[in-house]
Amino acid sequence: MFDPVEKLKEFIRHPSVSADPAFKAGMQGAQTFVSDLLTSIGFAVEVVKTDLHPIILATRGTNPAWPHVIIYGHYDVQPADPLNLWKSPAFEPEIRGNRLYGRGSADNKGPLMTHIAAVARLLERRPDLPLRITFMIEGEEEMGSPSFPNFLERYSDQLKKADFVYLSDTGIPAPDQIVITCGLRGLVLCDVVVTGPKSDLHSGLHGGVLRNPIQAVAELCASLHTPDGLVNIPGFYADVAGVEPWEREQIQKLGNDPEKYREFLGIPAFHTPPGYTPFEATRVLPTLEFNGIGGGYQGEGTKTVIPSKAFVKISCRLVANQNPAKIRDLLYASIRERMPADVTYEIIDQHEGTPYVVVPPDRSNTPQNQSPVLAKAFRAADQAIGEVFGKSPLYLREGGSVPIIADIKRVTGLDSVMMGLFLPEDNLHAPNESFNLTVMEKGMRASEKILESIAGPE
Amino acid sequence: MFDPVEKLKEFIRHPSVSADPAFKAGMQGAQTFVSDLLTSIGFAVEVVKTDLHPIILATRGTNPAWPHVIIYGHYDVQPADPLNLWKSPAFEPEIRGNRLYGRGSADNKGPLMTHIAAVARLLERRPDLPLRITFMIEGEEEMGSPSFPNFLERYSDQLKKADFVYLSDTGIPAPDQIVITCGLRGLVLCDVVVTGPKSDLHSGLHGGVLRNPIQAVAELCASLHTPDGLVNIPGFYADVAGVEPWEREQIQKLGNDPEKYREFLGIPAFHTPPGYTPFEATRVLPTLEFNGIGGGYQGEGTKTVIPSKAFVKISCRLVANQNPAKIRDLLYASIRERMPADVTYEIIDQHEGTPYVVVPPDRSNTPQNQSPVLAKAFRAADQAIGEVFGKSPLYLREGGSVPIIADIKRVTGLDSVMMGLFLPEDNLHAPNESFNLTVMEKGMRASEKILESIAGPE
Repeated sequence: MFDPVEKLKEFIRHPSVSADPAFKAGMQGAQTFVSDLLTSIGFAVEVVKTDLHPIILATRGTNPAWPHVIIYGHYDVQPADPLNLWKSPAFEPEIRGNRLYGRGSADNKGPLMTHIAAVARLLERRPDLPLRITFMIEGEEEMGSPSFPNFLERYSDQLKKADFVYLSDTGIPAPDQIVITCGLRGLVLCDVVVTGPKSDLHSGLHGGVLRNPIQAVAELCASLHTPDGLVNIPGFYADVAGVEPWEREQIQKLGNDPEKYREFLGIPAFHTPPGYTPFEATRVLPTLEFNGIGGGYQGEGTKTVIPSKAFVKISCRLVANQNPAKIRDLLYASIRERMPADVTYEIIDQHEGTPYVVVPPDRSNTPQNQSPVLAKAFRAADQAIGEVFGKSPLYLREGGSVPIIADIKRVTGLDSVMMGLFLPEDNLHAPNESFNLTVMEKGMRASEKILESIAGPE
Repeated sequence: MFDPVEKLKEFIRHPSVSADPAFKAGMQGAQTFVSDLLTSIGFAVEVVKTDLHPIILATRGTNPAWPHVIIYGHYDVQPADPLNLWKSPAFEPEIRGNRLYGRGSADNKGPLMTHIAAVARLLERRPDLPLRITFMIEGEEEMGSPSFPNFLERYSDQLKKADFVYLSDTGIPAPDQIVITCGLRGLVLCDVVVTGPKSDLHSGLHGGVLRNPIQAVAELCASLHTPDGLVNIPGFYADVAGVEPWEREQIQKLGNDPEKYREFLGIPAFHTPPGYTPFEATRVLPTLEFNGIGGGYQGEGTKTVIPSKAFVKISCRLVANQNPAKIRDLLYASIRERMPADVTYEIIDQHEGTPYVVVPPDRSNTPQNQSPVLAKAFRAADQAIGEVFGKSPLYLREGGSVPIIADIKRVTGLDSVMMGLFLPEDNLHAPNESFNLTVMEKGMRASEKILESIAGPE
């Protein structure tokens, strides 16, 4: 049995930034690393080519009578910039306290390693375990999984035969409070690029006769929210699903302190739509955010220029029942309607993802036809997590997005059991990302129990 | 006598970007180049140290009975980015057609070389010319001349004894239509840096509970103009000077075609405050522009982040009678009033400059006590320009800013004769800056005549 923490450090050392072509070697390195590791613990590994980054499909167990779990993860990571804000280099893993620092440590290399290690330990103890396990590990999650839907279609006959998908790519509020994620927000992303004059202009010679593209971008952005923080696009909230009473209970059980959350964020005050607590707003409400803005001179000192172009990167998070295509249409219609005629502009589609909901067994709204193996997995998780972490898990919708979970449901019919493992202070998508090694160790034990329960006793 | 074009190319090859510390060697090179050139044509050169980039002070002629002209210029240039938009490298001068391309070719190295060459030619022909000439050439104009006011104070006793300042750092509408600039806009510049969360956040996990700093910056920017293009700051226009009838006449004589100007700018439509033509607006109205904006992810693809910080770089151009300190106070008061309490922010002062006006002789509003040598210089310029360019010059206020012209007036009492030499298509402060070599050649002849007229005949 390998040392999981050492293996995780090795994994992080491959700088696998999928969105940036400059990191091609890091992507290749991470893919080979995972493939070799799974081969070493007895899996038959297939590296499935896609238009961009390959998907690793690795299986053990062939008896069709056995239950079949697909474990999902991704070997790619977010860009690491701004690099100067990292205390230790992003791709040189470093342990400080009980945390392992490095880009991808929590999203998703650490949680993925947790499950690989749990499987390795379980199979070492029970080499004949009556459980079919398929690892399905992609390399494009951080860019919206563009190749994944096509892969699902190509492999749907094979994947459909599994019982459910199991993964850890969602969050928990505290090291001893695991959350089973029962919903993920969808996504619609686009860039808006505004062009004013055909080339940068001297702001003295020409200032006062034309609309600066920065002004046009700012006016568009300012129009997209109401003063109380709602998204100002007609129809945006029309399809938003209501909240079940058991969901409100679970959110309340979280017991989070808004003041502590505010301090964690480091903001003077919340700006949450009226009628929602911060902990409700991120789970049950859609959003529109600006992920990046740029234009003109960005260097030191001053440059009195009217830039030719300015841009903003927009993302909407969608909740249950909202349709990405419809929201994209509404967003684009508002942009087109509001953009003044004295500039030109281009809207560039980025990826999108459908929101997802799964209801655990024994709830008011559990579907009648829920798969018995899925229900067994939920119950096994509840039991194992209670034993290892000392507290039952909570069942919550999450603010984040893993768009492929909805794609898997659409193409294969499979639901997902999502055991959260990363903490708010893990700094996902931000400098100084880290993973809590205590959570990792307990996560391995819980995962081992869950998988063994699904297989059944010796 | 040196070859002026070859010397200009040599000058441009020194990348003298004053605002960027990375270009220290280029600044030193340009300074030494100018000092050596002036020494070679008989000037006594003093390199005056300042806190940042030295000022070159070079004199010839000591007879206090002679008229005394100070020729101003600057050896520093704007940053050259975005470098990828240059057809030939910014600091490798290249002649295409009758234009010399390179950063600084028109602002201000070409016009400055025009006067140095005119002086060289004149002194070669009349070594005993009864004219005192002082070149006063600074290296911080493109960063707002921070050391210049202090230099003026230190050297005021010496500079006060001159009769007027002569320079070319303003524009003309066509190669045969010289403009004597009679006014310059002032400047107030600042950066606004907004901080939301203390570090970048995952927009899924935390989106919906806080104000994104990009949104705060956008809302501020959007608030600073009215829909019809006026600056939306109470009191901003209160002190703006009216326009004399002879000024309106001169602007009309420009005879510019708005449609051609629109095409030159490459915009679908003007966005000029109502009641002003584009050619009036840039000369007699103040502005507020955004010179740069930034925040969040600016790279390829997407990164679903809520950034910790966003910024905007703001500049106001001021016209006659407006006071920079007062406008700065009004601007800052509006920013403070409009910035929401759920973010923090910092306003960073950049430089400022007072607007300037000089009235030529024989006008309705010419001051009674105008200096006879200044009046003689204006008349000499009118005559020489008419002869060499085939058209009398126009007398116009300009949209650009040379803040030190107002400083010179305040400290030494000297007015300036500003003979424009650069064209709209010279792309000042933008990629592919160039200087028209026909204008340069005629400019040298005109300048030689002007200086000789002031000295008087042989």
